[in-house]
Amino acid sequence: MAPQDTEAHDVEAHPVDTPPADPPGRITITEIARRAGVSVPTVSRVVNGRSDVSPATRARVEELLRLHGYRKRPPTAPARSPALLDLVFNDLGSPWAVEIIRGVEEVAHAAGVGTVVSAIHGRSGDAREWMRNLRARASGGVILVTSDLEPTLHEELRILGVPLVVVDPTGTYADGVPVIGAANWAGGLAATEHLLALGHRRIGLIAGPPRLLCSRARYDGYRAALEAAGVPVDDCLVVPGDFQSESGFRGAGALLDLPEPPTALFAASDRMALGAVEALRQRGLRVPEDMSVVGFDDLPEVRWSAPPLTTVRQPLADMGKLAVRTVLRLAHDERPDAPRVELGTELVVRSSTAPPARP
Amino acid sequence: MAPQDTEAHDVEAHPVDTPPADPPGRITITEIARRAGVSVPTVSRVVNGRSDVSPATRARVEELLRLHGYRKRPPTAPARSPALLDLVFNDLGSPWAVEIIRGVEEVAHAAGVGTVVSAIHGRSGDAREWMRNLRARASGGVILVTSDLEPTLHEELRILGVPLVVVDPTGTYADGVPVIGAANWAGGLAATEHLLALGHRRIGLIAGPPRLLCSRARYDGYRAALEAAGVPVDDCLVVPGDFQSESGFRGAGALLDLPEPPTALFAASDRMALGAVEALRQRGLRVPEDMSVVGFDDLPEVRWSAPPLTTVRQPLADMGKLAVRTVLRLAHDERPDAPRVELGTELVVRSSTAPPARP
Repeated sequence: MAPQDTEAHDVEAHPVDTPPADPPGRITITEIARRAGVSVPTVSRVVNGRSDVSPATRARVEELLRLHGYRKRPPTAPARSPALLDLVFNDLGSPWAVEIIRGVEEVAHAAGVGTVVSAIHGRSGDAREWMRNLRARASGGVILVTSDLEPTLHEELRILGVPLVVVDPTGTYADGVPVIGAANWAGGLAATEHLLALGHRRIGLIAGPPRLLCSRARYDGYRAALEAAGVPVDDCLVVPGDFQSESGFRGAGALLDLPEPPTALFAASDRMALGAVEALRQRGLRVPEDMSVVGFDDLPEVRWSAPPLTTVRQPLADMGKLAVRTVLRLAHDERPDAPRVELGTELVVRSSTAPPARP
Repeated sequence: MAPQDTEAHDVEAHPVDTPPADPPGRITITEIARRAGVSVPTVSRVVNGRSDVSPATRARVEELLRLHGYRKRPPTAPARSPALLDLVFNDLGSPWAVEIIRGVEEVAHAAGVGTVVSAIHGRSGDAREWMRNLRARASGGVILVTSDLEPTLHEELRILGVPLVVVDPTGTYADGVPVIGAANWAGGLAATEHLLALGHRRIGLIAGPPRLLCSRARYDGYRAALEAAGVPVDDCLVVPGDFQSESGFRGAGALLDLPEPPTALFAASDRMALGAVEALRQRGLRVPEDMSVVGFDDLPEVRWSAPPLTTVRQPLADMGKLAVRTVLRLAHDERPDAPRVELGTELVVRSSTAPPARP
């Protein structure tokens, strides 16, 4: 941990233990850019030793970096597997998370890498705190699951040379960050085709949060299946949800209150499907005799819901495994196999779907 | 990471980076004891600088420790919060795990400590591999959940000076390791009393694995409630399970096949309760009209099972939170509030229990 005075020209910056003017870890790259009167990418260019920076700017930025305790990695540091990687969720409130953790831990453990699990709760304070801790423990890679990081934190990871992989992206990542998702569109298509094949024509959708890419893809798959079958898309049959059971319960209630309710429901998450099943039960409706229900995720427990749920399997553990392999490739300065990967989804037919009672 | 030659007399031992005769991290304390021809506690006494070891033995053990890359912590190392702690599960296959992770992460994050999550799958190879990684990353504490460690690994943690806290112990820990559990006996009592109060007299139990302390405590609570109510305990009504849904499904089937089946079931885990509900559904029996079912855990999803499950809430996240606070106290050389703590369980009455059809 002792600071080293080795002549430095490599790509990483590390905070050192000696107290600078500000407490270590409290200054952001953005702040350094602001104080130097330059852009964040310029600070990045200085740290990475690029030549396209004027000597005066370089001197000013380097002085600030020194002052605030950034120090470049000595060139003798070998490229080896990191001791740690960080797995970051928005929150840990869902059994969904444990499936990803399971896959990540399995591959990381086999590589001798520890998995640090964090939740940032969509709060920028939590995310900054996490970034401070990440720097202190010298994590060698980050896997970000269904969460957004502020651009400054993205930039900070890049400057620190910590590779980032995004799993189940909330939006688009244009800056070369590898992205691993599930084939959400194909899953939405398969779920809806299954209900169409059973003879359903009025199929309700309890959709996910519209701001998430995966919600949009599932919705588009639903529409595509209906259109391919020549069934008009009825916007009254689409209600919004937030992936939690409560919203599935409410969404199913709203659809049942329609003058002409659907005969089948596709819920864009298993938890919403379970909420929908409960809404049906409370109204004395049986699944699948009175209403078919399809979920999305294939969480372990829906194999045992009453009735066992027909759903679209997301390969969550496999997504986690691939994320680790990708982040370790990046840590070894190798390129990922592909910058964007979608792992296949699969319809699993159980007991919650049947032909409509009155076709 | 550079080896330091400071005169050492503190309590911790660290592996160093210089390659000894054996690869670093491959030698166990037991092996050192064996080669020195002494007991493991004697090695521990040498490492901890205790005086009750003969000079000849001390010299022999110290030589072996040096040879195999153990080095004592320099006395100048300050006592501060660790950057990391390790959270170790037997496996990550259950939504149960994510509740514990959630509690641990919340308190650890607030303390600036990263949570490394591992699964050791009851395999000693995995556990040793984990221990090697733990040493390499200098983790500052270990929380062990429903898992056993071999005595040599326990001893190794002690010699490394890494504090250990056990959550939901599988057995008894006599060696001063703090233990945090749930009030399993009281939970078993409350579940059974609830069914008795509804008028049930033939109450089946789908029990947990008998080797686990928590299973035994829930079973004893069940018996105590029956005996207090003057209801004879009928061993035919107790079937074994392994906490997974499949075993609940089979257990309920076995109880329904009895000449005189029970009118209510207490399953010692929520997952077994869900399996039991599915077994009932497949036989055309309704919950709670034809059979009451009580679970144990209060996993988030049983709020949305069909019907919502009456169950015994284990404060899993709170157990995780207390475990972090305890391990951090130990890391600061403070004593835990109490060496053994049981957090209260609570009966949550939902829709899966009702009076028997024919009292």
